[in-house]
Amino acid sequence: MPPAVRVAKGLDDAIVGTSAITYVGGETGELVYRGYGIRELVPGLPYESMVHLLLEGTPPDRDPSPEVVRRLGAHRTVPEALGRTIDALPRDLAPMEALRTILSAIGDGSFGYPPSRDDGFRLIARTPLALARFVRRARGLDPVPLRSELSHAAHFLWSLTGELPAPEKIAALEGYLDLLADHGMNASTFALRVAISTQSDLVSAATAAFGTLKGPVHGGAPSRVADMLDAIGTPDRAEEWIAARLAEKQVLYGFGHRVYKTDDPRGLLLHRIARGVADPQRLRLAEEVERVALAALRAAKPGARLFTNVEFYSAVVLEAVGLPRTLFTPTFAVARTAGWAAHALEQATDNRLIRPEIEYTGPAAGLRWPRPVLRP
Amino acid sequence: MPPAVRVAKGLDDAIVGTSAITYVGGETGELVYRGYGIRELVPGLPYESMVHLLLEGTPPDRDPSPEVVRRLGAHRTVPEALGRTIDALPRDLAPMEALRTILSAIGDGSFGYPPSRDDGFRLIARTPLALARFVRRARGLDPVPLRSELSHAAHFLWSLTGELPAPEKIAALEGYLDLLADHGMNASTFALRVAISTQSDLVSAATAAFGTLKGPVHGGAPSRVADMLDAIGTPDRAEEWIAARLAEKQVLYGFGHRVYKTDDPRGLLLHRIARGVADPQRLRLAEEVERVALAALRAAKPGARLFTNVEFYSAVVLEAVGLPRTLFTPTFAVARTAGWAAHALEQATDNRLIRPEIEYTGPAAGLRWPRPVLRP
Repeated sequence: MPPAVRVAKGLDDAIVGTSAITYVGGETGELVYRGYGIRELVPGLPYESMVHLLLEGTPPDRDPSPEVVRRLGAHRTVPEALGRTIDALPRDLAPMEALRTILSAIGDGSFGYPPSRDDGFRLIARTPLALARFVRRARGLDPVPLRSELSHAAHFLWSLTGELPAPEKIAALEGYLDLLADHGMNASTFALRVAISTQSDLVSAATAAFGTLKGPVHGGAPSRVADMLDAIGTPDRAEEWIAARLAEKQVLYGFGHRVYKTDDPRGLLLHRIARGVADPQRLRLAEEVERVALAALRAAKPGARLFTNVEFYSAVVLEAVGLPRTLFTPTFAVARTAGWAAHALEQATDNRLIRPEIEYTGPAAGLRWPRPVLRP
Repeated sequence: MPPAVRVAKGLDDAIVGTSAITYVGGETGELVYRGYGIRELVPGLPYESMVHLLLEGTPPDRDPSPEVVRRLGAHRTVPEALGRTIDALPRDLAPMEALRTILSAIGDGSFGYPPSRDDGFRLIARTPLALARFVRRARGLDPVPLRSELSHAAHFLWSLTGELPAPEKIAALEGYLDLLADHGMNASTFALRVAISTQSDLVSAATAAFGTLKGPVHGGAPSRVADMLDAIGTPDRAEEWIAARLAEKQVLYGFGHRVYKTDDPRGLLLHRIARGVADPQRLRLAEEVERVALAALRAAKPGARLFTNVEFYSAVVLEAVGLPRTLFTPTFAVARTAGWAAHALEQATDNRLIRPEIEYTGPAAGLRWPRPVLRP
């Protein structure tokens, strides 16, 4: 082993391995899944085909992937034991808080090491169903009957509401799920790979990933974009509101990204999707807020390469699809289960314990306890 | 940001930051908590004083730390909602599988960012209690009445069995908890720090850590040491059994460590503790297996610096304390909640999103989907 090198504490400057799943071009604004640029695929690619691409590495023979349709369908159930645990959770728990426990409870002792593709399908199929069961119960509603003929995206909405929205809303959610399905070595995926590196199982690793996604710096801000739009109210108030906010050194949600130093390609596509489904007034408000915020941010920090991030139009799209704000980040997690499964499979193919070094900066060894330690 | 450097995929050669909590001297066999060598503290230091040292950075005024006794005592409860979730889990779930969900369910929505010391005390106090409730229920038993006068170590055993073992057994468990309370930037603590780096909460981060600890390469092998001792049976069979095992290229559990290239100081102290509490016959078997295994491993790999690791005598001690094998790794997690709390507090004091780079090795961008993607 070569002598240790110090890397930035955010690991920004450390290349920690290789991955053949997703290329994130931070300078060029590219997002490439297994060689396919997302502009080639979204909107329009069924999520089942996206799952196929991420897990298998190649496109299916048909769209939606017949194999993934079949295998997700086989796991489109909430086993009784899982249902009991979900139903025991406090009804007033925030869905993000509940989903961590629900994800963990999907682990029934049968997820082992190495993770299998079928483990991945189970995780992807059950996460939205189990979440929907919790959400309905919190509203005092029974689970809906399962419908095997519905797509993954449509079934998620069905399982939440017992209704099917207009096809363009389902398609909008599908585009969102496709776009958020993976994103290289982001923090939650890194946590997942650290967990798999100890030969832990997929559910444990996905729960680790979820605990990481839960932080607002990673997954927790899209609902605050919607709150911000509400607070601004109308396009003519954007200028004043944003100036006041920046004067108070407050954060504007939906702007800036660790990796993208240009437009986030997901944001551009979500904007396009939003144009098709969002309430026109809400869309105009969002567009004006975006314009004013970018101008103000760039004026405040000349030279900083600040762009709209994925969260901004995620909020507009998820709202247009009919999801409540408390489900924005849980829906991000539902999308990302595909990427987590793909990364777990990849990590296990050439695994090694991830255990970095740290520099100890505490007191030098040799301090004496201030009184005798009682020897038993 | 300087240009990115490639680090080993196990991050063995990457120093990812600084920490004032624990120094692990892999070459010298040292383990130092906040300047205090563990030989100075163990056996004998009450776990409450160890928690104080790890979280506050300095020793308490008295042992056991009055403040920690009081604050752990205040959280020595299983809130009703948590109890309901625990009681809903399948009784036949392995405790390690259950504990992930239980840890997550400790999160009731009130753990925020930044983590507080009180969050840490809640986590440390409730984890063993909640685990014990599950374990008793799996055996068809009600929870025991809480006893505020008992130490953390004694209460853990009390809450599992409703009995108090001999004082030397409680002291042996206390020594184990002290020795396993923290260990620098191990994989689970790293996962916890990745989670906190997104401004996630302590329960989410501890659940991430636990999902990482669950892998046998990190936390999952002590029960297999006990299984190995059983399989060997008597000291005279050690030579033959180990030779056969190595001839089949099978792993011997309890030997070798990523960091220690000499005796693991925890193992030496656990061996000493074992001498005081283990059944003399079992201890002799363990000592003979250790002697034979080290000789055989070193003969098989001349030059490799292979030593007994912490798991070997952990198994002997935990068994002597009366814990079943299914609780060995959960008890490790119970001990480690102190270190997790300390690292979460430290990470939050100077936080930055941990998001490394990865080299994309998949197909170059520009592939065309084999058929038109249906635009909605």
